[in-house]
Amino acid sequence: MRPRGLQFESRKGSATRKIVEKNADDRPKSLKETRDIVELRAGTPVPIDCFGERAVRLARLVELGLPVPATVAISMNTVRAIASGRIFDAEQFLQPFPEGELLAVRSSPGQFGWGGAESILNVGMNEATRASIGDAVGPEAAANEYFQFVHSYSVNVARLDAEAFDEIASSDLDPESKLAAALRRFEEDIDEQFPQSPSTQLMQVLRCMARAWEGSTARILRQARGAPDDAGLGLIVQVMASGHGPGLNGTGYAASTCYESGKRQLTGRFYPVEMKGRSLSIFRSGSAFREGISGISIRNLDRDAIDSIAANLCKTRKGYADSVEIAFAFRDGVPSVLDARPAPRTARAAVRIAVDLVEEGATTVEDALLTVEPEALMSFLHAQVEPREGQAVLARGIPASPGAATGGIAFSASEALIMAAKGIPCILVRAETGPEDIRGIYTASGVLTGRGGITSHAAVIARGLGVPCVAGASDIKFDARAKTITCFGGKSFGEGDLITVNGTNGEVLEGAAVLVEPRKDDAFAKFMKWADVKKDIGIRANADTPEEARVALGFGAEGIGLCRTEHMFFDQDRLTVVREMIFAENADERRAVLDQLLPMQRGDFENLFEIMQGLPVCVRLFDPPLHEFLPSGRDEIRELADALSLPVSKVATRVDELREFNPMLGMRGVRLGITMPEIYEMQAKAIFEAAINTCRDSRTVIPEIMIPLVSANREAELIRQMFETVAADLEYAMGAQIGFRLGVMVETPRAALRAADLADSSTFLSFGTNDLTQLAYGLSRDDVGRFMEDYVSQGVYPVDPFQTLDIDGVGELLLLAAERGKATRPDIVLSICGEHAGDPATIEFCRDAGFSYVSCSPFRVPIAKLAAAQCAIRERRKNI
Amino acid sequence: MRPRGLQFESRKGSATRKIVEKNADDRPKSLKETRDIVELRAGTPVPIDCFGERAVRLARLVELGLPVPATVAISMNTVRAIASGRIFDAEQFLQPFPEGELLAVRSSPGQFGWGGAESILNVGMNEATRASIGDAVGPEAAANEYFQFVHSYSVNVARLDAEAFDEIASSDLDPESKLAAALRRFEEDIDEQFPQSPSTQLMQVLRCMARAWEGSTARILRQARGAPDDAGLGLIVQVMASGHGPGLNGTGYAASTCYESGKRQLTGRFYPVEMKGRSLSIFRSGSAFREGISGISIRNLDRDAIDSIAANLCKTRKGYADSVEIAFAFRDGVPSVLDARPAPRTARAAVRIAVDLVEEGATTVEDALLTVEPEALMSFLHAQVEPREGQAVLARGIPASPGAATGGIAFSASEALIMAAKGIPCILVRAETGPEDIRGIYTASGVLTGRGGITSHAAVIARGLGVPCVAGASDIKFDARAKTITCFGGKSFGEGDLITVNGTNGEVLEGAAVLVEPRKDDAFAKFMKWADVKKDIGIRANADTPEEARVALGFGAEGIGLCRTEHMFFDQDRLTVVREMIFAENADERRAVLDQLLPMQRGDFENLFEIMQGLPVCVRLFDPPLHEFLPSGRDEIRELADALSLPVSKVATRVDELREFNPMLGMRGVRLGITMPEIYEMQAKAIFEAAINTCRDSRTVIPEIMIPLVSANREAELIRQMFETVAADLEYAMGAQIGFRLGVMVETPRAALRAADLADSSTFLSFGTNDLTQLAYGLSRDDVGRFMEDYVSQGVYPVDPFQTLDIDGVGELLLLAAERGKATRPDIVLSICGEHAGDPATIEFCRDAGFSYVSCSPFRVPIAKLAAAQCAIRERRKNI
Repeated sequence: MRPRGLQFESRKGSATRKIVEKNADDRPKSLKETRDIVELRAGTPVPIDCFGERAVRLARLVELGLPVPATVAISMNTVRAIASGRIFDAEQFLQPFPEGELLAVRSSPGQFGWGGAESILNVGMNEATRASIGDAVGPEAAANEYFQFVHSYSVNVARLDAEAFDEIASSDLDPESKLAAALRRFEEDIDEQFPQSPSTQLMQVLRCMARAWEGSTARILRQARGAPDDAGLGLIVQVMASGHGPGLNGTGYAASTCYESGKRQLTGRFYPVEMKGRSLSIFRSGSAFREGISGISIRNLDRDAIDSIAANLCKTRKGYADSVEIAFAFRDGVPSVLDARPAPRTARAAVRIAVDLVEEGATTVEDALLTVEPEALMSFLHAQVEPREGQAVLARGIPASPGAATGGIAFSASEALIMAAKGIPCILVRAETGPEDIRGIYTASGVLTGRGGITSHAAVIARGLGVPCVAGASDIKFDARAKTITCFGGKSFGEGDLITVNGTNGEVLEGAAVLVEPRKDDAFAKFMKWADVKKDIGIRANADTPEEARVALGFGAEGIGLCRTEHMFFDQDRLTVVREMIFAENADERRAVLDQLLPMQRGDFENLFEIMQGLPVCVRLFDPPLHEFLPSGRDEIRELADALSLPVSKVATRVDELREFNPMLGMRGVRLGITMPEIYEMQAKAIFEAAINTCRDSRTVIPEIMIPLVSANREAELIRQMFETVAADLEYAMGAQIGFRLGVMVETPRAALRAADLADSSTFLSFGTNDLTQLAYGLSRDDVGRFMEDYVSQGVYPVDPFQTLDIDGVGELLLLAAERGKATRPDIVLSICGEHAGDPATIEFCRDAGFSYVSCSPFRVPIAKLAAAQCAIRERRKNI
Repeated sequence: MRPRGLQFESRKGSATRKIVEKNADDRPKSLKETRDIVELRAGTPVPIDCFGERAVRLARLVELGLPVPATVAISMNTVRAIASGRIFDAEQFLQPFPEGELLAVRSSPGQFGWGGAESILNVGMNEATRASIGDAVGPEAAANEYFQFVHSYSVNVARLDAEAFDEIASSDLDPESKLAAALRRFEEDIDEQFPQSPSTQLMQVLRCMARAWEGSTARILRQARGAPDDAGLGLIVQVMASGHGPGLNGTGYAASTCYESGKRQLTGRFYPVEMKGRSLSIFRSGSAFREGISGISIRNLDRDAIDSIAANLCKTRKGYADSVEIAFAFRDGVPSVLDARPAPRTARAAVRIAVDLVEEGATTVEDALLTVEPEALMSFLHAQVEPREGQAVLARGIPASPGAATGGIAFSASEALIMAAKGIPCILVRAETGPEDIRGIYTASGVLTGRGGITSHAAVIARGLGVPCVAGASDIKFDARAKTITCFGGKSFGEGDLITVNGTNGEVLEGAAVLVEPRKDDAFAKFMKWADVKKDIGIRANADTPEEARVALGFGAEGIGLCRTEHMFFDQDRLTVVREMIFAENADERRAVLDQLLPMQRGDFENLFEIMQGLPVCVRLFDPPLHEFLPSGRDEIRELADALSLPVSKVATRVDELREFNPMLGMRGVRLGITMPEIYEMQAKAIFEAAINTCRDSRTVIPEIMIPLVSANREAELIRQMFETVAADLEYAMGAQIGFRLGVMVETPRAALRAADLADSSTFLSFGTNDLTQLAYGLSRDDVGRFMEDYVSQGVYPVDPFQTLDIDGVGELLLLAAERGKATRPDIVLSICGEHAGDPATIEFCRDAGFSYVSCSPFRVPIAKLAAAQCAIRERRKNI
């Protein structure tokens, strides 16, 4: 090997220099501009909008005193001049480097992810360097390295026919013959010898990369990622940091924390120069990071090498106040650092790293909270599929409830119950679910449906219960009679066959999968405590049952923001009573049946109030249309008629009478409450009696009562009167004081517009953004699967408004209502209890709008808390 | 008879006088107030808020120089003092009248309809007057008149037991014995003689009437009609104008125009004093006007009497600038006028009278236009039921499409077609209708449905076609299999049985009814021409077919504001092609099928454009969900499978796939247009080619194209691009210039909120207030029947928002959208095309909001025009 020192000094003294454009083609003087290159040295400013993000990243490393190889950053303006041919001599770019050094040229776009041509390595390779490498590693290896450069240059820079060169590369020839064939091919195509001058090579490489940036494909790709029209590209020229000396030679990456756990542990891989191909290509592009599972573990390196790597990692950990992964190289035993970025980590590791960094004083609690993506906390809450190669994906649906589960197929709720009774985990598989499936969903390990979207019945229930669910897997054909499902490829599955649903990404897998179980550890607990301290908006949970309430409390919910009382009615024994009520002939009969439900409802509420230990509980009054409680099939109608001792025709008639064209827009919510007041009266009694019964010396229970589907204030007034009457009667009968807060669930656009009126009768307004979105768009969440994918992919809607709150439309309704509600009643409590409530962007929106709390699925409470804490921190910083 | 002159002079000279309250019970001085009475004389001001509306009406008559009997008006303050007992001597009220005159006391509330006690007549009747009447008409008649006064006074003033006196009245006793019995009974009950002093009688009458006004029932009744809490009552004391002399004696009413036709014609009835009872009671209260069909025609009176009546009518016609009905009396041949009010008239008469008044110079066009209620024009447009006693009302439903029709019952569209082919008028009777019924509705004379409201399918189609319809007759039980309907009382009707539907009031009658056919006469034409000149907002019609377009033009529509193209697809031959399209496997197949529809659609539009003669035509692109075109029954699915040569299972699967939970919120409108662009492309071609083909030298056809169910501007952008591409292709192929205007049907709340964006891609915004109301309230118009009645009757909603535009909620969305749309595009054309567009209140709202036009059912165009003219006139007057 030729003696090529690691002196990083440039040939000239000044780090920044002006390149004077040569006015080659007599263009008007006005086009003559000065453009910059900069040698990376401590203290030299490298503005990102001139040189791009890679240049800035490297400058940071230099700043931290890490041994970065000699590097020159070329500004975006200069790159433009190169592309347009106004600069055609690379001599000036070569000047900073020692003569004879091989160079790497890399892209430095304005932002990570905006593309740029792939790196070209070993620029400067020619017969002379081949000879000098040959001295060190033998002629065959040297010929191979030269061949690889000729191959890469011919295809990527000279744009010659790739197939011809690939053919040579994959031939049985020895390296020297390959090289000879490649050089010959080059000369034939170009009618010139392969360029030997490093300056010529570099100029061609720079021009090629600069022009690729201007291509229309590159432009479209980066604009899709948000790059502006005039986004420029910087380029980096750097000495190749690996070598061929007698010491250690090669490249690798290393981090100081475990990818899985986040615990302190030196990890990384090293690719010695002898491992041909790999050592040259590992840093070809950013995406290659972590791609190698070949190479050797860095723990197998000698002590000195490990120490130098560890020392460099230590510097970066402090410098970045984060766990960092570095790309490093050794040239004849001398280390250098080529790149650094936050160490890759699982969500679990991210939390551990954040907590460790705070505890070792390397960062602040606020900074630590900002390093973890809220969604990443999911892995603490739900089982996840461990990716495994080759497992067949049977179908893809909508990831409707996160987590993963494996089990045998059950085609009905009753099958699911039977399997559960035998101790067999099962996946409830239904074309679509209805209220009669709730117990099945509760019992199943996972749910798969063929129809419906993110807010379909199955999805909402499964999320509430924390059961993984894939919904709307429309490629699956359901045959309920034959009890089979058939997937796109024609593969069929029957009852009991094993499948896995991955509700986190929407995949349905064949057979069992390796699952990583959720686990809350001490780091998670500490981390969430910090989030609690920093956030400044309340986080409640939507919980309908004692089980959900316990989960909610376990995840740190500060109350229940939405308790859907109708879910209490779907239990088999209650369902019969509910159905009797539906068949009551008049209000008195109805009242008599409801008297049977009263003790059950009271028990439900007592349970909830006890579990929540005095935290607020917001009860939504009965909401669904009555036909949801009735069967539709002929056999089931006959059964029901038997159970109720009614003629079949009568039951069928009532079922038909209650049928609605658009049930979502029909006889439900407060409309039922007003036309059949007995139902709400029973609920009022149950709530009040439960509140009285669960009062303790130290606490009083003040239930919050929420009226659904209000569209006019008079509705709320009538319900308020009803509740006041019931309360007064009970106060008289029981000699107790009854306190309650009454509010409105704002879920119709009209309710939002009339919030000033509503605030007259309401102490709180809680936005049901599911229905509000449905009504603002005129879009049924149950029918949305049919075209939402098309719509989002065509950019008709930027995102699915059922997944991400539509700030522009629905959001305006929220803001209007908030403003109007406050104008009437300045202390009105505002909140959101739709599915969106768990979404970080929505939380930020609600916080900005002055909402008191958001209420989300119990399983999203930690995510919501972290998102809320991050909002608060970011705003505080913005205001400083 | 005693000589009682008709001198109307009072005993004192001054017309207005102060009554000094007697401080009888030593109340504090501050309660002593001065209150007024006024004698009605020309030039004396009678403010309505002091004396009430009757006083003002009478003063007006005096002012016009009509012979009004001597009259005193007592102010509301004075009446209050009487009620509270602070005035207890009637002497002052008697002073203006000649001694011995009998008097009438009548109520004069602040506004007509606010109530007030019934009139008490013949006050002052006693033994002395009995004797003097006896001189004129004999003792028996005199005794009878006295008895009647004693009866009325005892029951209404002294509040004695009515039954006892009624018993005497209905006994077989002769008049003198009845009188004796009544006087005895009075004395027994009161322990006093029947009062003989006119002053005592008058004081009691005044106090009784003043106190009745303060009663809580009276208060509730008048407040229900809008009276304020502190509404007062004035009282009128007037000389009884009939007498007992040798000349003509009696009372009557008369008008100068025919009630039915409005033509000049002296009409009226006279009740001679000899017709006992009648002559005394005919003017007991306002509501007695026109009540009598007894009496004699005034044409049977002698020439002098007729002349004097005609002269008085002539004065009032000029004085009121209207046709007036007067109440008159003769006393010994001397005429007087007791009251006057606008002559009762049918709608047809109202128009005739208005036109005549303008032509004879008695009133202005603007005043004439204001005298006719827009809704009254209905009788020019639809047949009406001539009310007949005793006809059984089988059921009541929602008056869904005005007009009336008699026919045999047809239980299906095909039956209706068969009956029509035989020339038998039929009423299509369905539990509910769907697209397959359209031809049936078109063929039937009337429609009756058991379910659905004012905007249900049947209602909308029937209104569009001008077919009378009663919808949602929920008391009727439908048995489709047995082909019978059973009404509430248990009466059943089968196929072919004769019934009558009255779509104007919602009644279903048994058998045939007498119908009054609609007729447009020359007066109507003149009247509408004036309305055209005065109105300043455009009136277009919603018309889907050539027939409707012709009707629209006939009624003076200024264009088509909404042409629903899908209605063109329900014809049997086209339906098959549409269904083939639905079963197409891919876009190419779909396009091939649509190519068959293209010439049909083009023909539709050519027809429309020709008929409309260059007036604007706004075409709404295909809107309904595809499943509306598919059958749902098993047999029909089998038939369809045969027709399409497809396996039944495939058809059934597709039907099932297209089924939606909430079709209203599903895959329809622009969502279809974007996901299956072939449909709109075909429509674009059809519209453009039709426009080119119907251009004439003198006119170009610039079609307006409206996109349904938009919720985001990107939707409109994509359709705009599609239409521009199709237009460019056609321009190239046909060498013609294609102009068109593209706009959005604003029917989702989000579209309204985002109107600023929409205006970027739209030259017009047309509000579909049906859907907008559904979505703002979260209320399906098809399911609304179930509780809307309860809701409106309980005042939860003040009115049905599908009938009357909800100004507070939906109206705000309209205003927001109008403002935002104009901000982006100041010349944007705004309009409304929902069902509300024909409602006068909505027209006023749209006019105020700066809309360019409203588009309503063809049959409401004249109504809309008159309403628009009245708005313009009223506003002009307000601004003067």
